[in-house]
Amino acid sequence: MAGSTFGNNITITTWGESHGAALGVVIDGFPAGLSISEEDIQEYLDRRKPGQSKFTTARAEGDSVRILSGVFEGKTTGTPISLMVENKDQHSKDYGNIATTFRPGHADFVFTEKYGFRDYRGGGRSSGRETIGRVAAGALCAKLLSEIGITVTAYTKSIGDIACSKIDLKEKENNKLYMPDAEAAEKASEYLEACMLNQDSAGGVVECIIKGAPTGLGDPVFEKLDAKLAQALVSIGAVKGVEIGDGFAVSKTTGSINNDSFRIDNGKVVKETNHSGGILGGISDGSDIIVRAAIKPTPSISQTQATVNEAGEEIEINIHGRHDPVIVPRAVVVVESMCAITIVDALMSHMTDRVEYIKEFYKN
Amino acid sequence: MAGSTFGNNITITTWGESHGAALGVVIDGFPAGLSISEEDIQEYLDRRKPGQSKFTTARAEGDSVRILSGVFEGKTTGTPISLMVENKDQHSKDYGNIATTFRPGHADFVFTEKYGFRDYRGGGRSSGRETIGRVAAGALCAKLLSEIGITVTAYTKSIGDIACSKIDLKEKENNKLYMPDAEAAEKASEYLEACMLNQDSAGGVVECIIKGAPTGLGDPVFEKLDAKLAQALVSIGAVKGVEIGDGFAVSKTTGSINNDSFRIDNGKVVKETNHSGGILGGISDGSDIIVRAAIKPTPSISQTQATVNEAGEEIEINIHGRHDPVIVPRAVVVVESMCAITIVDALMSHMTDRVEYIKEFYKN
Amino acid sequence: MAGSTFGNNITITTWGESHGAALGVVIDGFPAGLSISEEDIQEYLDRRKPGQSKFTTARAEGDSVRILSGVFEGKTTGTPISLMVENKDQHSKDYGNIATTFRPGHADFVFTEKYGFRDYRGGGRSSGRETIGRVAAGALCAKLLSEIGITVTAYTKSIGDIACSKIDLKEKENNKLYMPDAEAAEKASEYLEACMLNQDSAGGVVECIIKGAPTGLGDPVFEKLDAKLAQALVSIGAVKGVEIGDGFAVSKTTGSINNDSFRIDNGKVVKETNHSGGILGGISDGSDIIVRAAIKPTPSISQTQATVNEAGEEIEINIHGRHDPVIVPRAVVVVESMCAITIVDALMSHMTDRVEYIKEFYKN
Amino acid sequence: MAGSTFGNNITITTWGESHGAALGVVIDGFPAGLSISEEDIQEYLDRRKPGQSKFTTARAEGDSVRILSGVFEGKTTGTPISLMVENKDQHSKDYGNIATTFRPGHADFVFTEKYGFRDYRGGGRSSGRETIGRVAAGALCAKLLSEIGITVTAYTKSIGDIACSKIDLKEKENNKLYMPDAEAAEKASEYLEACMLNQDSAGGVVECIIKGAPTGLGDPVFEKLDAKLAQALVSIGAVKGVEIGDGFAVSKTTGSINNDSFRIDNGKVVKETNHSGGILGGISDGSDIIVRAAIKPTPSISQTQATVNEAGEEIEINIHGRHDPVIVPRAVVVVESMCAITIVDALMSHMTDRVEYIKEFYKN
Repeated sequence: MAGSTFGNNITITTWGESHGAALGVVIDGFPAGLSISEEDIQEYLDRRKPGQSKFTTARAEGDSVRILSGVFEGKTTGTPISLMVENKDQHSKDYGNIATTFRPGHADFVFTEKYGFRDYRGGGRSSGRETIGRVAAGALCAKLLSEIGITVTAYTKSIGDIACSKIDLKEKENNKLYMPDAEAAEKASEYLEACMLNQDSAGGVVECIIKGAPTGLGDPVFEKLDAKLAQALVSIGAVKGVEIGDGFAVSKTTGSINNDSFRIDNGKVVKETNHSGGILGGISDGSDIIVRAAIKPTPSISQTQATVNEAGEEIEINIHGRHDPVIVPRAVVVVESMCAITIVDALMSHMTDRVEYIKEFYKN
Repeated sequence: MAGSTFGNNITITTWGESHGAALGVVIDGFPAGLSISEEDIQEYLDRRKPGQSKFTTARAEGDSVRILSGVFEGKTTGTPISLMVENKDQHSKDYGNIATTFRPGHADFVFTEKYGFRDYRGGGRSSGRETIGRVAAGALCAKLLSEIGITVTAYTKSIGDIACSKIDLKEKENNKLYMPDAEAAEKASEYLEACMLNQDSAGGVVECIIKGAPTGLGDPVFEKLDAKLAQALVSIGAVKGVEIGDGFAVSKTTGSINNDSFRIDNGKVVKETNHSGGILGGISDGSDIIVRAAIKPTPSISQTQATVNEAGEEIEINIHGRHDPVIVPRAVVVVESMCAITIVDALMSHMTDRVEYIKEFYKN
Repeated sequence: MAGSTFGNNITITTWGESHGAALGVVIDGFPAGLSISEEDIQEYLDRRKPGQSKFTTARAEGDSVRILSGVFEGKTTGTPISLMVENKDQHSKDYGNIATTFRPGHADFVFTEKYGFRDYRGGGRSSGRETIGRVAAGALCAKLLSEIGITVTAYTKSIGDIACSKIDLKEKENNKLYMPDAEAAEKASEYLEACMLNQDSAGGVVECIIKGAPTGLGDPVFEKLDAKLAQALVSIGAVKGVEIGDGFAVSKTTGSINNDSFRIDNGKVVKETNHSGGILGGISDGSDIIVRAAIKPTPSISQTQATVNEAGEEIEINIHGRHDPVIVPRAVVVVESMCAITIVDALMSHMTDRVEYIKEFYKN
Repeated sequence: MAGSTFGNNITITTWGESHGAALGVVIDGFPAGLSISEEDIQEYLDRRKPGQSKFTTARAEGDSVRILSGVFEGKTTGTPISLMVENKDQHSKDYGNIATTFRPGHADFVFTEKYGFRDYRGGGRSSGRETIGRVAAGALCAKLLSEIGITVTAYTKSIGDIACSKIDLKEKENNKLYMPDAEAAEKASEYLEACMLNQDSAGGVVECIIKGAPTGLGDPVFEKLDAKLAQALVSIGAVKGVEIGDGFAVSKTTGSINNDSFRIDNGKVVKETNHSGGILGGISDGSDIIVRAAIKPTPSISQTQATVNEAGEEIEINIHGRHDPVIVPRAVVVVESMCAITIVDALMSHMTDRVEYIKEFYKN
């Protein structure tokens, strides 16, 4: 079945392989009238671009985005927005020797089993480059959200055992790991260098905070806001776990602690604490929405690994080429994008929740 | 927007409130020819029924299911299967006094914000009774899976701090907490009794193992098998986190450990380890599929809590009535059901992945 | 795949067979706050009920609807609305003799080919009784539309060769054929009596006019308002054609005639004529929306017919039992319902078409 | 809401405006392993290309298609197939003078009302060029169908009053109007020349025959094969009516004539006649599937027309530029494409209709 589309009111459909001609996204159902430029989108794409630090692959892609449709005179028209990035630095020959090998931790084996063969160049569709489409769409959604006072901010919460002990969002911009804690960033850098020396790789956790979201977003029961965020985040390659609010810690606490008391602040209902991560019963409660994604270590490592090939032989492989020792920093903008898309979709859905809203809209 | 439907090839649409006339589910797209009886479904429903141990609410619901359509002469017909459970023991008066109060940790506040008012009787649509429809659908899906050699088994992995140190699936049936470790079950019981004495409640983790699933299930990129399982599980009320395979632990390990080596076993490609939890690149890899859901402590506790009411006043409430000190054991069959539904959906999707499959099917 | 659900923002999922325990519908995504009672819905259902004239089957069904969920204190709650009609007068034995016969013009053969067997009682799922769910949902949608000044009115445009030469909507209520032209109704009655004498049946055309719909409904390109209306109407059993506005007549006219000139009336853009049937480019243009559905003669006739049975034998059959000599009058409310549902769905969609709408909604 | 996607198992998402940078389609869920080249697709596109006869616009577009993803080593990979045609001959200046005018019969007015403004260049998204994406996708689907013995053939059934009196599919290729009747084509040419002399335009009917489709395609009740074909065809701009089999003629016949008798032919159940157009109860019955679409006269005519502009002034316009006096011949391949897509989608759906199919597929 078709699995490349996400969303209900707005949909994003991503396409493209790591070493194909191009990658892109079609965003459909996006509202008309948003001012947007290729530069706005490029800014987001540059955050996931390779080659930005010693911890990211040196692949020299410009990753320049083109708006092919859906924008006229600088504004979205309401019709599908097609965005494309052409692949430039494809180095197909690099990958020739692993065309028939199933790399451990990669999707080579399952793609071959599923489809009968696979585009083996750079991981094909299962490459991290697939996220280009998500980030391009995320740029539009984030801009739309900013116009109604909603911000979506992701950062690296931890790498390996090293977790941030504070969240200073300004600090996040000061280090290549996008960690909001300078000290943690420093330690994480050392840890990553050690990993690289060992020809090994590291994992981590990305956290995202959504501020300014109104109450009422998310639809019971299968389209709960957290259920959609969970799908959105786990759909990112390498994510193996998702938490909302206190996440797995809720399993060890008690109701008297975990329940967030309501109180009145300036005439508004607010919560004394935010263990719920801004979502109750699958619906936003007006507090900050907080989600986390656990990201596995880059599967491509230079160490010799045991595996098998398509002929059914047990072999050893050494993966050369350009690979990030850690995916986490580049995943930050992807998490942010998927959250932004999910929130926009939920915002649109909420507008039809009540008969009074519909009557108000069509009153004249 | 409509949020009560889950699935692509088969869909389940649940309906009903805790204290309405009835609750149920419509299962559409279910294949024709499965032998099924009300007893088969009832067996599953009885596993989530209240009143089964001292740790579950004493509400005396028979929860008897009726098949209203889609089954003829004992077999599914291919047309929508409508299943209904009538509410018998509604005790509406019990809930009258909290009609205008926003209970902490509950969806009262967000439903009121979203829809302008709410069915306050027993949590209305946000009640755990909503899962009746899921479990009834899960019974059908589990039966279908068993016919092709796939089993879906969930159990309580931990309650509070007490985690199982072994997985003995037979033991699971011996204790009311559905823990596959007798010793852990014993300790968890003591912990829960302490919680009850404190008028408090506990959380825990449910784990589910799917055995016998073929490779190739799940569709890149947004319909990844793990992304759909994540949506499925987080859509269950009270779930605040989801893990696949090693889950959040992957963030602290390295690639050389986390990568599962492939080897050949009896001519088949298998994995030496299963850190991936049976899913690579969003597609089943032939190993056991392993997922976990973190479940928060029951929000209804007898302790006095600070909250607000619809009039915007800060008040204190004491919640009386029938409530489980822990939801986890009753959530086990819900997790199992959602996994079974997700797997059936993915099995159907995979059948059209290749031109050769289509040609084979239509060859004559 | 699942085919029993219609709609995007609101969805209706119908279920049930002619002679099963019950039939019904789940309406999901319906906005909160509409006052609705079982009587409101019953009124619609009574319009499709059998036994109302000599031209409709004498089957004595009460067809009493029950609201099972989604309505609290007389108002919709925003959660799924489950409506059910229990089958009372099932006469299963009547149908025993045709259990293995493929009736000409019926779906017996194709259901058996598709699913391997079929519920042969009264046509099972392909019975006209399936429309009960549609009409129940249509009642809610029509009530919602009336609150924003939109009316949906269907009537019998023609039966056999006899077409209305005028549209007097009051007259429609005066005859059992729901024809808005008394003279045509008279002639059509005579024609139908002749058909009955011949043990034959008749077809006809139902027309539906939607007044008061705003401009801007319908989404390019596959969710055009007319494309969805076409799907909605052809999904009704026995419909073999659909027209919007001038319909097939456009094929014989010229652009200079068919183009509706725009002019200004009271400061509003209006059309001089309405060949377009109120839809341009798939989007409502503010004029009356006009659609027509061609309905085939009832396939169940008493004449001896040649056919085959499941054993592959050529046989002759005589269909006895209760059958309408013409379906058209009972289809009127079904057409009206499907149009109402489609319009509500489009109204909700339009509310998110512009950034300015979203900003206005979330402005505080 | 998002309206640019069609299909359930395979989906096509079209994008692009008449005078934007490019137009295209993303085909998702297409099975892996079909041999396909840009030439295969180009062949289809060339059939809808402008400038092929005196009855089509002289706009000189190469309309060269590029495969951007989803095809590797000449075969589909199972991942989304992105196809793009860049706009070359855009002549933006031609359209400057009608930027603020609502052309009669066009979507200018409704797009402006819906979205607040519009891309006025060449009709923007409502241009016939949108069908490029459909035809590119149709080429792939037709090729897949041909591999399992299904052919989809559309042709011009009538132009104005001139209808084909025979269907000689070879003759169809001999005339630029794609009419399967040389005599009718001759007369239609004369009629069109007269229309052009009058600065007027003509409509017509396209018919499509699908041969070789198995029984069992289409899903009750809203995803009936004819309901989806109806949506597919009416979603094509300018289509104002759809018929299946005898279409509107069924309204004037009787059951004894309209019912197609079943008989046995070579051990197979066949129908004596095919009034049903190959579809009973919304499911294919093994006979030829026959559908028709009524297409309105090209709204762009050179005659002076009365209309209004965005300022609300009543004005007269003369539309210059390149326009087809009749759209019908170029719509033939679009109808064929939409039918092919719909059939492929239904074929995939049918493969999961029975438990026995699923068991057979997963038997080892």
